[in-house]
Amino acid sequence: MLRMVTAKVWVLKKHFEGFPKTSDFNLKKIELPNLKDGELLLESVFLSVDPYMRPYSQRDMKEGDIMIGTQVARIVESNNPAFTVGAFVVARSGWRTHFISDGKDLQLLPSTWPESLPKSLALGTVGMPGLTVYFGLLEVCKMKLGETVLVNAAVGAVGSVVGQLAKIGGCKVLVGCAGSDYKVAYLKKIGFDGAFNYKTVVYLDEALRKASPDGYDCFFDNAGGEFASIAINHMKKYGRIAVCGAISQYNDSVPQKGPYVQVPMIFKELQMEEFIVTHWNNRWEEGLKALLKWVVEGKVKCHEQVTEGFGNMPMAFIGMLKGENLGKAIVKV
Amino acid sequence: MLRMVTAKVWVLKKHFEGFPKTSDFNLKKIELPNLKDGELLLESVFLSVDPYMRPYSQRDMKEGDIMIGTQVARIVESNNPAFTVGAFVVARSGWRTHFISDGKDLQLLPSTWPESLPKSLALGTVGMPGLTVYFGLLEVCKMKLGETVLVNAAVGAVGSVVGQLAKIGGCKVLVGCAGSDYKVAYLKKIGFDGAFNYKTVVYLDEALRKASPDGYDCFFDNAGGEFASIAINHMKKYGRIAVCGAISQYNDSVPQKGPYVQVPMIFKELQMEEFIVTHWNNRWEEGLKALLKWVVEGKVKCHEQVTEGFGNMPMAFIGMLKGENLGKAIVKV
Repeated sequence: MLRMVTAKVWVLKKHFEGFPKTSDFNLKKIELPNLKDGELLLESVFLSVDPYMRPYSQRDMKEGDIMIGTQVARIVESNNPAFTVGAFVVARSGWRTHFISDGKDLQLLPSTWPESLPKSLALGTVGMPGLTVYFGLLEVCKMKLGETVLVNAAVGAVGSVVGQLAKIGGCKVLVGCAGSDYKVAYLKKIGFDGAFNYKTVVYLDEALRKASPDGYDCFFDNAGGEFASIAINHMKKYGRIAVCGAISQYNDSVPQKGPYVQVPMIFKELQMEEFIVTHWNNRWEEGLKALLKWVVEGKVKCHEQVTEGFGNMPMAFIGMLKGENLGKAIVKV
Repeated sequence: MLRMVTAKVWVLKKHFEGFPKTSDFNLKKIELPNLKDGELLLESVFLSVDPYMRPYSQRDMKEGDIMIGTQVARIVESNNPAFTVGAFVVARSGWRTHFISDGKDLQLLPSTWPESLPKSLALGTVGMPGLTVYFGLLEVCKMKLGETVLVNAAVGAVGSVVGQLAKIGGCKVLVGCAGSDYKVAYLKKIGFDGAFNYKTVVYLDEALRKASPDGYDCFFDNAGGEFASIAINHMKKYGRIAVCGAISQYNDSVPQKGPYVQVPMIFKELQMEEFIVTHWNNRWEEGLKALLKWVVEGKVKCHEQVTEGFGNMPMAFIGMLKGENLGKAIVKV
């Protein structure tokens, strides 16, 4: 069969300086070759835009490279007996509408995935961000029954799950959340014990003390920067800080400075640990199974901010970095 | 028996502002009451001056309180059958020449302590500072055979032991050390693989890279501040930072600022943990036994900076904070 497939791809035209701009990206067309033995042709259905893409593109990419990223894709053609046409997989193939794979880096959606559940959740609560929370709370924060958990960027793909998993674990969840009272209302709706809009509180220090006068056992830090510097002073003795992200710092042209962390760490005997979910690669099945179960049972609510059209990927990415999303930011091709 | 014992004590006259001054202290005389049943009269023989006294006096003491601290003391009189006159103990009774105790918070020197070994080592390598290193390297740094260890304030009571214990553990030890070429020479003499004078290197960044081009697995941080901010960029992936002290920051009137730590932590998946040796209180015997053995076998060399005279305690304390000591700073009454 002779066939010609043209893929659209988004290329990093220019390394970001400060906040990414749409003009830093370039939309290109690429003609895909015919499939060899063992290869598959895939079509992206949902693509993910995530905070990590900002620092990692800076570190790992050259100008002209296709943007890094993850998608849910459908198998369109298969020269590989292990994969059936029509099946859905999670791939790490970057910002592309179509791509060819030998199947090695593809993960089939769990066979127990209910038909009624949006497949895009495999990029969010039942995917990498959800697993990040699962291992971050269990293994890094080592959260225990009755503890108080602080999370920032709390309506994001990760933050919103932190609150809900901490509740399932029997913790009290108190939150600092970005930019809007609408988001605070949403957090309360999905079960957070406390939430505030950090953009409108006069003193963050006071807001954190008021929210939990006894302090915090666990701090799931998605933002870093000034919020983290203030929050560290509100940790309880032996508190654990899981450094998951630093979205407040990713777009700085000049690194920001804040008070050194050692003195508060010494007085409180704190633990601060960075972690990346791939560290628990051998336990993803366990994590995904648990997350899928909680979502299906309605114990974890999912919200997605879906942008339509592959052409709008840069806009969706920039909007997510600006905190315009509520829940997981997704692009539907 | 009627007896009148007068103790000399050092009192915090005024909370330190910036660097402690001798005028912040006051020497007082206190008349001790007669012993009750179960009580002991003790006489300090060696007193310790340690970096922690700077931040903890600030946090835990009022003006007029007797300075916090530890001593090796001799039992002068005993109304307690568990303690014999003439025996030596480690006490936490602050800056005093004489004091009364009910024996509860006293620790007898190990029975295997050789007569030839200075008893002052119970305040240093075979005491709290040595244990800090023992648990810091084993439990916080989780050092492994063949790893590269970085330590700053490396000729101090803690730092000098870090290097030697890391060597015993089969690590390569590279060091940043304060203030003098004489100290660097000492470090090389006691077995450090590399050492440099951080006051004379032009760029600390370059010195750290040159000392270990592949980076560092473990960083035992006694200093904090700018050194720590630069060192964090030289950690290997999955590196562990044990925050033991922050001597570079203790005397700041205004907290210093430095680059936020989250971004380098994220890229390298680093772990940073503060720890205090009391966390392993139930394992002190194990630690002291190991340390004593290494010292007796000559595998760990000890150096002490002994100041004569109880009247010179403030001076010894200030000198230690300025880094004038080589090895453990001790005052001999």
